[in-house]
Amino acid sequence: MLSPHQGNILGIARKAILPFSLSFILAATLAVALAISAIFPREVRAQTQTEDEQTVTAIFNERLTTGEMYYLLEDLCKSIGPRLSGSEGAERAVAWAKEVMEGYGFDRVYLQEVMVPHWERGDPEQVRIVDVEEGMIELRALAIGGSVPTAPTGITAPVVVVHSIEEVEELGRDAIEGKIVFYNRAFDQTVIGTGAGYGGAVGQRSAGPSQAAKYGAVGVVIRSVASNFDDAPHTGGLRYLADVERIPAAALGFQSADRLVRVLEEQPDARLFMHLSSKWHPDALSHNVIGEIRGSERPDEIILVGGHLDSWDVAEGAHDDGAGSVHAIGVLRTFMKLGIRPRHTIRAVLFMNEENGLRGGIKYAEVAKETGEKHLIALESDAGGFSPRGFGASVDDDVLERFRSWLPLFPQNTISYINKGGGGADIGPLRRETGTPTIGFIPDSQRAFDYHHAPTDVFEAVNRRELELGGASIASLIYLIDKYGLKGEMAQ
Amino acid sequence: MLSPHQGNILGIARKAILPFSLSFILAATLAVALAISAIFPREVRAQTQTEDEQTVTAIFNERLTTGEMYYLLEDLCKSIGPRLSGSEGAERAVAWAKEVMEGYGFDRVYLQEVMVPHWERGDPEQVRIVDVEEGMIELRALAIGGSVPTAPTGITAPVVVVHSIEEVEELGRDAIEGKIVFYNRAFDQTVIGTGAGYGGAVGQRSAGPSQAAKYGAVGVVIRSVASNFDDAPHTGGLRYLADVERIPAAALGFQSADRLVRVLEEQPDARLFMHLSSKWHPDALSHNVIGEIRGSERPDEIILVGGHLDSWDVAEGAHDDGAGSVHAIGVLRTFMKLGIRPRHTIRAVLFMNEENGLRGGIKYAEVAKETGEKHLIALESDAGGFSPRGFGASVDDDVLERFRSWLPLFPQNTISYINKGGGGADIGPLRRETGTPTIGFIPDSQRAFDYHHAPTDVFEAVNRRELELGGASIASLIYLIDKYGLKGEMAQ
Repeated sequence: MLSPHQGNILGIARKAILPFSLSFILAATLAVALAISAIFPREVRAQTQTEDEQTVTAIFNERLTTGEMYYLLEDLCKSIGPRLSGSEGAERAVAWAKEVMEGYGFDRVYLQEVMVPHWERGDPEQVRIVDVEEGMIELRALAIGGSVPTAPTGITAPVVVVHSIEEVEELGRDAIEGKIVFYNRAFDQTVIGTGAGYGGAVGQRSAGPSQAAKYGAVGVVIRSVASNFDDAPHTGGLRYLADVERIPAAALGFQSADRLVRVLEEQPDARLFMHLSSKWHPDALSHNVIGEIRGSERPDEIILVGGHLDSWDVAEGAHDDGAGSVHAIGVLRTFMKLGIRPRHTIRAVLFMNEENGLRGGIKYAEVAKETGEKHLIALESDAGGFSPRGFGASVDDDVLERFRSWLPLFPQNTISYINKGGGGADIGPLRRETGTPTIGFIPDSQRAFDYHHAPTDVFEAVNRRELELGGASIASLIYLIDKYGLKGEMAQ
Repeated sequence: MLSPHQGNILGIARKAILPFSLSFILAATLAVALAISAIFPREVRAQTQTEDEQTVTAIFNERLTTGEMYYLLEDLCKSIGPRLSGSEGAERAVAWAKEVMEGYGFDRVYLQEVMVPHWERGDPEQVRIVDVEEGMIELRALAIGGSVPTAPTGITAPVVVVHSIEEVEELGRDAIEGKIVFYNRAFDQTVIGTGAGYGGAVGQRSAGPSQAAKYGAVGVVIRSVASNFDDAPHTGGLRYLADVERIPAAALGFQSADRLVRVLEEQPDARLFMHLSSKWHPDALSHNVIGEIRGSERPDEIILVGGHLDSWDVAEGAHDDGAGSVHAIGVLRTFMKLGIRPRHTIRAVLFMNEENGLRGGIKYAEVAKETGEKHLIALESDAGGFSPRGFGASVDDDVLERFRSWLPLFPQNTISYINKGGGGADIGPLRRETGTPTIGFIPDSQRAFDYHHAPTDVFEAVNRRELELGGASIASLIYLIDKYGLKGEMAQ
């Protein structure tokens, strides 16, 4: 591997030739010249950097050199771990985040109370194919978050395979009643931004159970909504309709779903056994965790940068959304380390309960509306700790153009575009309640749904450089917004 | 994780709220509207696609849907495995590649003879710290490719730590003679394109051993040239100067290098024991593997797309350069599957011996010059199977502008730039011998040097979507070049 963009700028050839030939020396020398011409235009900064170029470079250098937010994420993942709303892990995460921000010496650190749903998975799920030649076949499964349990002894029923919500209606009660409905829709691999592929398949998880119940089904299993092909099941939330019986629902690993398809093709009378012991508890008291650096010129105008602190219960929530949590903390931390004194108040908000209720985001917006706090803009990072690609911004066109004028400040292979339209689940209520413009961070999404809501979303799935480049990109954008304002009103 | 760019386009909320509130339904509805506005501009193609848009879309869809080149890479990695020049693995890889291309029905598949160096690592390396309180401390190490062996009983010597080639000269013979020189220069984490970080540190591996020998050193160890912090040692080539004694050299894992640093700080008299049993054999006969689809209009003008088939001996060479090999084959395969009949001859070249000699690239260029074959352009993929970012092209300015005019055809989050200057090690000789313009494929580089030349460069380190997006990007560029020509001379 030696292409010019990764070549050798010391003028030393790396090939082992023994003894090496004249043609090789010539080749190496020319390769080096080529390498230099390819590297320098991008990798070496101009001699006369503007203040903005210097600051952005300093932000990237600090993040890449120390990896401090990467190690903070490791601590969250390994010393706290899973942190579903209402759980003991979530409460430990709240205390952890407050302690971290206080330790960093932010001007103000506080908790915002919010009541959150409290659902527990219970014992490990059992889903198996029975009444087959093989005796029985165990499948890897996770209860969909919010599912009711099965009867204590489990349920056993024949299976009907469908590929959409609509197909359930088409098949009708005769085909569905008394059965377990298997939603077998696969992720659309052709969509480049995998979020849209997810969006196209997630309906079977969220709305599938009530739809099946309407036609008399006794349970639901789905092919996990995921981009890869391993057997890790991916959980996530479901939504029961108020007037329909609540039936138990579980997500199967991709390979388990394939197994079920094959068995049913050959043995259509095979039945599924499901045992879920999940439980709903009363709402619990929890908290959004908030830290801020007070603005030097406009302290009453807030620039919010957020992620969510809660995670699903089956993993460490490293990408979802430990990454966003340390991205948010990291903006303030980096500003303090580099001596950047913001003009506006910069506020990091770690929201509680994004995954199964959005209560933290809703509460935050309610309070902001009541108190009349002014938010200049809110940015969320909730798409993982992967290499940065761009931002999406729900802002006026002139603001969008201003943001885009800053694109040359971002190093090549970091932020290359700013789309019109963007935000995040947690800051959506703030936008709706107060009209605050929003921004969503967009990292490379190719691996995101390999890990999303699955036991594989662990710290080891995060690359240090990718995480820190994302954090540096966000901090740089916040720096520029703070310095110039949305309308350029701060420019001198 | 639910930001607008990855939201739900079915109009179904994914949150579990039980029972769910009116404010939530409102929030969900608005979130969906937001999601749609964010997704559609990019993810849904215009109703009236041009032929180019249709073809590029078809290429991406084919690659992402089938993952065929990903599974071909799996076969190369798992059924062939390591394939250093001169090894039995390399010869099996040659036969494998020929059989694959013949099986795909390319118009012409043939081998091009080339004599290659043949170096063998021998027994597992032993490097340990001795004469210390702890008794002895084993370090993880790999001989640098091309290193001479130690004496059969190993060597033991005190250690002198340096951070550059220049420092050896500054310290001089008094400090170096009889010692093992430890080059402890670390990868520069601040460089965004990691290839340049690699280039800045690789001199200690390639030129470090002879430099140390000039001043009387008896051996060399280096901190592996790598971007991450695990303990996998990274091999690679070295270059002995002709008039200097050849001394054995090994690369230490990052953590092993740290360990050595700490021990030497407290116990400067600690010595290193090294045992390498590597061996040089006479040059061996090997082959470049070549396959082509004959052009329908200009069959005598060749568009070359290449990677290298050889790999280091310690890994599967999945990213380096199995990825490039299947990228090259994949262009032809995809054209045939989609019924794209090229105007020029499209030739896939899997070069032999990039890693330790470049003999395949040199031989290919010699033959091309002798026969007078005309190459329109040559593209190499040798930077890994990661998400695509851009291309670098060593072409005239007007050609570069033409290439850049095609950028809107590439989906967002794939190719976002074409730099001036680029190519690859294997196609460098062709450029120099015949003046052929060259292009290098540039994937995201953040993880590349975590795996590069290390035992961790295995199939499991490759993501299916990332690999196929790179392959689709390359195939799309080749399609456009073939259709229009470099100067637009084929446009109708």
